[in-house]
Amino acid sequence: MSTKATLSRRNFIRQVGAYGGCAFTAMTTLGLITQATGHGAELSGLPHIGSKSKNKVLVLGAGIAGLTTAYELGKLGYECVILEPRSIPGGRSMTLRRGDRIDETNGFSQTCEFDKGLYFNPGPSRFPQWHVTMDYCRELGVEVEPFVNLNENAFYYAEGDVGPLSGKRVRIREAKTDLRGYASELLAKVADQGALDERLSKEDVEALVDFLHYEGGLNRSNEYIGSSRRGYKVWPGGGFQEGELDTPYGLSELLKSGYGMLFHRANEYQYQAQMFTPTGGMDKIPIALAEKVKDKIVYGAQVKEIRRSNPGARVVYSHEGADHEATGDFCVCTIPPTILRRLQTDLSPMLKNTLNIVPFQNSGKIALQFKRRFWEEDDRIFGGLSWTNLPVGELWYPSSGFMGKKGVMGGYYIFGPASDRLGNMSPAERLEFALSNGEKIHPQYREEIENAFSVNWSTIPHIEGCLAHFPRAMLKTFYPLLIRPEGQLYLAASWTSHLGGWQAGAFEAARLTVKSIHERTMAS
Amino acid sequence: MSTKATLSRRNFIRQVGAYGGCAFTAMTTLGLITQATGHGAELSGLPHIGSKSKNKVLVLGAGIAGLTTAYELGKLGYECVILEPRSIPGGRSMTLRRGDRIDETNGFSQTCEFDKGLYFNPGPSRFPQWHVTMDYCRELGVEVEPFVNLNENAFYYAEGDVGPLSGKRVRIREAKTDLRGYASELLAKVADQGALDERLSKEDVEALVDFLHYEGGLNRSNEYIGSSRRGYKVWPGGGFQEGELDTPYGLSELLKSGYGMLFHRANEYQYQAQMFTPTGGMDKIPIALAEKVKDKIVYGAQVKEIRRSNPGARVVYSHEGADHEATGDFCVCTIPPTILRRLQTDLSPMLKNTLNIVPFQNSGKIALQFKRRFWEEDDRIFGGLSWTNLPVGELWYPSSGFMGKKGVMGGYYIFGPASDRLGNMSPAERLEFALSNGEKIHPQYREEIENAFSVNWSTIPHIEGCLAHFPRAMLKTFYPLLIRPEGQLYLAASWTSHLGGWQAGAFEAARLTVKSIHERTMAS
Repeated sequence: MSTKATLSRRNFIRQVGAYGGCAFTAMTTLGLITQATGHGAELSGLPHIGSKSKNKVLVLGAGIAGLTTAYELGKLGYECVILEPRSIPGGRSMTLRRGDRIDETNGFSQTCEFDKGLYFNPGPSRFPQWHVTMDYCRELGVEVEPFVNLNENAFYYAEGDVGPLSGKRVRIREAKTDLRGYASELLAKVADQGALDERLSKEDVEALVDFLHYEGGLNRSNEYIGSSRRGYKVWPGGGFQEGELDTPYGLSELLKSGYGMLFHRANEYQYQAQMFTPTGGMDKIPIALAEKVKDKIVYGAQVKEIRRSNPGARVVYSHEGADHEATGDFCVCTIPPTILRRLQTDLSPMLKNTLNIVPFQNSGKIALQFKRRFWEEDDRIFGGLSWTNLPVGELWYPSSGFMGKKGVMGGYYIFGPASDRLGNMSPAERLEFALSNGEKIHPQYREEIENAFSVNWSTIPHIEGCLAHFPRAMLKTFYPLLIRPEGQLYLAASWTSHLGGWQAGAFEAARLTVKSIHERTMAS
Repeated sequence: MSTKATLSRRNFIRQVGAYGGCAFTAMTTLGLITQATGHGAELSGLPHIGSKSKNKVLVLGAGIAGLTTAYELGKLGYECVILEPRSIPGGRSMTLRRGDRIDETNGFSQTCEFDKGLYFNPGPSRFPQWHVTMDYCRELGVEVEPFVNLNENAFYYAEGDVGPLSGKRVRIREAKTDLRGYASELLAKVADQGALDERLSKEDVEALVDFLHYEGGLNRSNEYIGSSRRGYKVWPGGGFQEGELDTPYGLSELLKSGYGMLFHRANEYQYQAQMFTPTGGMDKIPIALAEKVKDKIVYGAQVKEIRRSNPGARVVYSHEGADHEATGDFCVCTIPPTILRRLQTDLSPMLKNTLNIVPFQNSGKIALQFKRRFWEEDDRIFGGLSWTNLPVGELWYPSSGFMGKKGVMGGYYIFGPASDRLGNMSPAERLEFALSNGEKIHPQYREEIENAFSVNWSTIPHIEGCLAHFPRAMLKTFYPLLIRPEGQLYLAASWTSHLGGWQAGAFEAARLTVKSIHERTMAS
């Protein structure tokens, strides 16, 4: 592991060298890497700008990155102007509620018909506790609550070439308990038979078998014959109701199902317990941020040109039917690459080329309002996700408003080309897609559906895409071009971070940009 | 597994036969076992009592079992009187807030000094989603929120003969990722070498190795060399901050630590994700229940005698300085065995003997109010539990009020004889015990402590104990004596259920009792 870290730092230094012209800015980030306690650029100790004259910054876009840039620069004494084409802040950090309307670029139009009090986050909807997003929630007074990302009582459901479990709902806890049980038994057996003696000491083999006994829920002979961890057919109760266990699935059928390859998802560092979400909707974050910079935001301002002036930046934008020009000592652009590509800019050809190939992909979600929370009432699933190999991918149960009369589920969560195909469908067709797949897992769907709202990010005006994850080859070649400023012009967004698709990426990119601008200003 | 279920039913029938005199009541519970969809006695379909004359029921105790009995019998048309010695309902289902005072039977006295808005549940504090407790919350309109039982970012900490990790805080995610990684690698290796070929088909061996690759976070050679699942030394961020992994622990040191034998705890059927708790404190449940039966509760009523009359029951109790007598067609006694043993009763010698040996054990918790939430601010642990082999056992981080200025942690959670020893200490000594142990895990303890409140259940008046888990031998011999009514006299409590120590046990025991009383009444 330390090898990897060293390599990555070495690569980094090499990259910095390769783009010598902007070594100053890049090198400051090296300081960050070594100084950071783990959560990005430290800004709290920075001095106020004082009487420095280069204090005007143009910020393009009032999503998380733009709002954070203006908010943090404002603390340091800069004058910011945020140009935002929409009438609301937050960008993809959005929450849908009754009356919200979206007109897609492909002509489809939807108005949200949720009951009052219900909501859905079509963009980011959760964050792990290590994300800087948590720190902003604290600082901004945005209340957070646990987000239920893993619910052992939710379902796996697969169809097709997956063996005998095809078409059968399996509780996550059942698959996990059984497969871990069998695997633990297998390893305990071969350990007892001496198969590990070459690699491990006798004492370690014994301790390993002890571990496997608990890990697998094995019996006294270290065999897996089922376990209460997989749940009960009849749960323990009062009096003589001791509980009745059900028969475990077989090892072979579980292996064929492929469910074991899903266990790790909730263990990955972005998804581990405990995740959080703002109480009342994700847009509480951009709303709180926007409140901090409210007199700096120009809504309805559509950027048309981004120019480098010497030594600052100049932007042409339309607002209320007329073209305007704004100038700044710096410009921080958070406009998504899909849109930025089309603008008139003085960006270098290399950067323009890079913007053309940023893998900024689409994603789509559908919110389904049901008359009752059948997943809670009938299936006893309170929050969490069910996983399926059906094209809907994941079903999301709401992580708030438990036991309410009605509820809004996430009916699919799809990325890339599959979501593009879905985006070409009408909202009614998307709903039918969600229902015809989802009803295989929840037969109550058709009976209980009340209304729906589908968000396809690539056809949302002024956003036109969702997130970028860079292949390793790009990280070493093109990605660095997105990070370095061109003169006084910066790009800052989740797609200029190693946290693609997360709000934390936008926060962190903004913070690095703020730190870089400030260091340059103070050094000037 | 089906073997076990069959056996247990067979045993049950045998027990019923053995206590032939009360076969009627017992047999009705058999019906419940087979009819139940998993959550205890179904009461919703029962007919109203109508004009039946045997409609008066004495209920002894206004804890969860007593309140539920009166509430459910009330729905069916019975007249109940609840005699409760304390001035509040709920029994162990309690929430501590500023100003609450407890005078222990051993002479110690404490008044809660928490800041307004802070609280602590010294008794039950969480329930899994399958418990009937969830259904009562829905029915009573008690709002629930997720209880963070597993936080991968919390700590394991062990001292003593535990190898090189002794005295070192280890994040749960680190130990879990590393040990599962190594175990997966070991099994994948021997599988590749053909060690499983006798037991599994070639296809299954391949699928098993695929599973282990994901399960263990292995590299392409199926070796475990660390994983982002164990967290980062420097987390991924903006710009070039790709993240730096730390060196994994060694297999041998992890095995010696024993931490692997703790992983399963959060996977057991009583503790699996997702657990819940009432928003604002556990006593929201008894308060809501008590509201439903408020004109039936006599507070300050201390039962002295429990008599069988023919065919009903008679109870002598003191209230406001005088002795009173109450009679009923049935009597449901929820008084803890430690107290019931001392009362004058007409219980059979066999049942009295059984009450003397019910393993009703003590437990203790301490609430620690700190000036700030250093576990959140410094350690980024938002809810969950840390585990230690120090005598404090578990540290509980509050599962609500995240990011608040102050917070109340659980400083120990101890059972049995160890808690008895602690109960003999003064509150100040208990606090010192919590601090001197806990500060090894959180050095901030001494600096940040503001006040504390320790609850030792065996010295709480009118409760005098906490919970019973019956050894298997007792389940087959003495436990059935607690379940069967003696004439018109029933015992109903969590210790007459298979859910000892859980509120759900009290709910389920009450529901079975209600069903039995009603069936006898309707058949009469």
